[in-house]
Amino acid sequence: MWKPDRSSKTPIYQQIADYMEHRIVFGEFPPGTMLPSERKLASVLRVNRSTVVAAYEELRATGLLVSSKGNGTIVSNPNEESGVNQTPNWKEYVEAGNFLPNQPFVRRIREELLHKKGLIDFASGQLSPDLYPQETIRELLQKRPFYEQLGYDNPQGCAQLRETLVSFLAQHLHIHTTDSSILISSGSQQSLYLILQCLLNPGDAVAIEDPSYCYSLPMFQSAGLRLFRLPSDEHGINPEEVMTLYRKHKIRMVFVNPNFQNPTGSVMPTERKMRLLEIASELGIPIVEDDTFTLTAFDGHPPPTLKSLDKNNNVLYIGSLSKTASSGLRIGWLIAPQSVISRLADARAQMDFGLSSIPQWVANLFIKEGHLEKHIHFLRKELAKKRNELMRGLTEIMGDMISYAIPEGGLTLWCRINREVDEFKWLEEATKRGVIFVPGTVYGSNKGWIRLSFARPHFNEIVPGVQQLHAALEMGGL
Amino acid sequence: MWKPDRSSKTPIYQQIADYMEHRIVFGEFPPGTMLPSERKLASVLRVNRSTVVAAYEELRATGLLVSSKGNGTIVSNPNEESGVNQTPNWKEYVEAGNFLPNQPFVRRIREELLHKKGLIDFASGQLSPDLYPQETIRELLQKRPFYEQLGYDNPQGCAQLRETLVSFLAQHLHIHTTDSSILISSGSQQSLYLILQCLLNPGDAVAIEDPSYCYSLPMFQSAGLRLFRLPSDEHGINPEEVMTLYRKHKIRMVFVNPNFQNPTGSVMPTERKMRLLEIASELGIPIVEDDTFTLTAFDGHPPPTLKSLDKNNNVLYIGSLSKTASSGLRIGWLIAPQSVISRLADARAQMDFGLSSIPQWVANLFIKEGHLEKHIHFLRKELAKKRNELMRGLTEIMGDMISYAIPEGGLTLWCRINREVDEFKWLEEATKRGVIFVPGTVYGSNKGWIRLSFARPHFNEIVPGVQQLHAALEMGGL
Repeated sequence: MWKPDRSSKTPIYQQIADYMEHRIVFGEFPPGTMLPSERKLASVLRVNRSTVVAAYEELRATGLLVSSKGNGTIVSNPNEESGVNQTPNWKEYVEAGNFLPNQPFVRRIREELLHKKGLIDFASGQLSPDLYPQETIRELLQKRPFYEQLGYDNPQGCAQLRETLVSFLAQHLHIHTTDSSILISSGSQQSLYLILQCLLNPGDAVAIEDPSYCYSLPMFQSAGLRLFRLPSDEHGINPEEVMTLYRKHKIRMVFVNPNFQNPTGSVMPTERKMRLLEIASELGIPIVEDDTFTLTAFDGHPPPTLKSLDKNNNVLYIGSLSKTASSGLRIGWLIAPQSVISRLADARAQMDFGLSSIPQWVANLFIKEGHLEKHIHFLRKELAKKRNELMRGLTEIMGDMISYAIPEGGLTLWCRINREVDEFKWLEEATKRGVIFVPGTVYGSNKGWIRLSFARPHFNEIVPGVQQLHAALEMGGL
Repeated sequence: MWKPDRSSKTPIYQQIADYMEHRIVFGEFPPGTMLPSERKLASVLRVNRSTVVAAYEELRATGLLVSSKGNGTIVSNPNEESGVNQTPNWKEYVEAGNFLPNQPFVRRIREELLHKKGLIDFASGQLSPDLYPQETIRELLQKRPFYEQLGYDNPQGCAQLRETLVSFLAQHLHIHTTDSSILISSGSQQSLYLILQCLLNPGDAVAIEDPSYCYSLPMFQSAGLRLFRLPSDEHGINPEEVMTLYRKHKIRMVFVNPNFQNPTGSVMPTERKMRLLEIASELGIPIVEDDTFTLTAFDGHPPPTLKSLDKNNNVLYIGSLSKTASSGLRIGWLIAPQSVISRLADARAQMDFGLSSIPQWVANLFIKEGHLEKHIHFLRKELAKKRNELMRGLTEIMGDMISYAIPEGGLTLWCRINREVDEFKWLEEATKRGVIFVPGTVYGSNKGWIRLSFARPHFNEIVPGVQQLHAALEMGGL
């Protein structure tokens, strides 16, 4: 973010005025845009309010801004007098569209993370930078000459990568498939988006776990689906509930995350998995298995995936490298019957013309040459250490205030708060103290739960982070 | 694609049976799937029909297939007798969804290109591999250590790349903007998709050029928009028609490709551009400028873009590296007011969580260090040579049968056929002779036009390609 240059000879108010003028003239803030209040801009830029007052004054003098009581400061329309020229009413445009914006709350957390440096981040469901295979990726990029084509890719994604995945998934997850049954996606999010946009009709009923990561995704609502929840206990959902929902609402698809579920960390026992498949098969409905965490199993024994038990091909399987290697590579995969893959590949080609060839090429080398396997061994140990550190911190600092089931894989701890608390006010206080987390209601759960990522903060940040969480709770007058 | 191994000791029919069994068992072809006819599979695999008959016979014997007169050969349901287990009705699922499939015809061309090797390709709107900066990209990847983060990217895209684009666009296209007004996309297709999904409501009226690349994109229909066409002459559309359409249909957005338009190659004169902006400003509606070809100007003097003339910020500007450097990098950009950029970045994060960091990093180096500029100089010369070769071939071989306006930039030649011909039958014949092109009606134009890409075939393929086009027309009995 831009900040005034304190070593410059130009006065700070003038720098701010120049900066704003630049942005107004180049169309970033079209006529009619409301600018931040003087107080707010002063706090963002870390200057005195009077400095911003002077800057805005300067801009009003040149006619770029108009201020009025109640309406705040807005960008003026240079052609207003002539009554002829108009900028489009952008506000009306950005509020249109099939596609809903993210929950304000989720947007807020993202904004905080983007703009405030040094936050201790218990919110993000991603690895800390020291857990990425940074060195390996750098070496692959430097040591392997890139001879792949630079034209449009195969709509299903890079053929070599698909072949490599066939072997990897067979060896490590007992999933047997073929290269033609795989679509390379940019990650689980894109796989889900394609399924929702292309295989379901607006008005269709679908079932999701409660609580569930899916609940935080407006893409279900954007697709016009009716969402029904499958309550879960410490072993995930009860498969019989699928039958009940089917009878009542004729649900057409079920979304589950059976291993190290996000946010709860629970693993569905094999008997439940078998029963779920049996029911899906009896009803003839697809199960979408979101399987991003299975390989993180801390004890080195990944529980079976639904897909590996799926004899009747009821499962659409979604996997990715985002939680086991790098979210920035943007590489995931979806396994489905050929007709489904063709449909989704065609739709994806229309939306974005497919994936870049470079990350697919790197991902292929990374998996094929055993680096992913090696990295997962390293990751399991590191994640277990960080989970233990978080549990230790919580026990020592917060004692009985918080309870949780111990997750044996995944990136997060799902915590119940054993007292009355407004999680949103708590988060507000915690953010002021430099710590951030996600209230459980974002995932559709009842009040009184929060999700703490132990993967994202650095090991050394975990205990200080818990201290601040505790202080925010105790001293925030909550 | 899989082919039987002729050097193996296993008989070919057995190899085919094993291959099909593998695919059936692993769910690629679920029960109920109709398999290709024996004749068709024989032609694809280049074996005798009797070999496929034997393979299918083998599979019928094991109970995996059932054949019946009229219904062809279908994958049988192993559990049919019990009447309990069902695979989902995948056909019903793949025919659902908000998102329409590509035009069957466009899918057909893509399939041909994907599966038939050695076709002379006048159809694809992309560069031939020898026109990609393959060496430069390989060198950048090898010589620059990759220190970028491997976590999720900024939702607007890589900050350095945005800053680099601010300088590049100012220097080369006189477009003045700021890094906050840019969204890095995976290309023009994604930029368009985001605009259609997020800034317009189903039922809204929009205007597109006739003919236009947009017409070939079902994404307009998928978004539920009402499309109105702006007829064009050799200088593009007549801006006054925008006014007429607005009065009649209250159009809410206009999509244009003013420089080296796809498919016609026309350039809108500056006066028309100015008038279009004046009208947009008067009506307060946004113009989406798809600007992928301006820098290819063969004479080294790119015509002005709408955006560079846009004083009232009515233009949403779309650019990319796909047509000037590499379509496989998947890097594009969109310039818009901050509120629009935020909305689109938020939506994109929901759809796919943003772009991979590696291609953005390479693109930044490629542009910042002057490689793009150098490459464009090279490209202009090469494209002009290929255009000339195509025009020479057409004149010598087809004479008066075809006429066209000479394009001074871009990748394609828009040809009028001066005789009665069914372009689709012609294409059918041409494909058999190893040449492929796009009939003009795909772009919404009247019959009697075709689009020939001179960028995609190799220089030495151009004249032989025209010979086959001619032979198909003359000898196909059309």
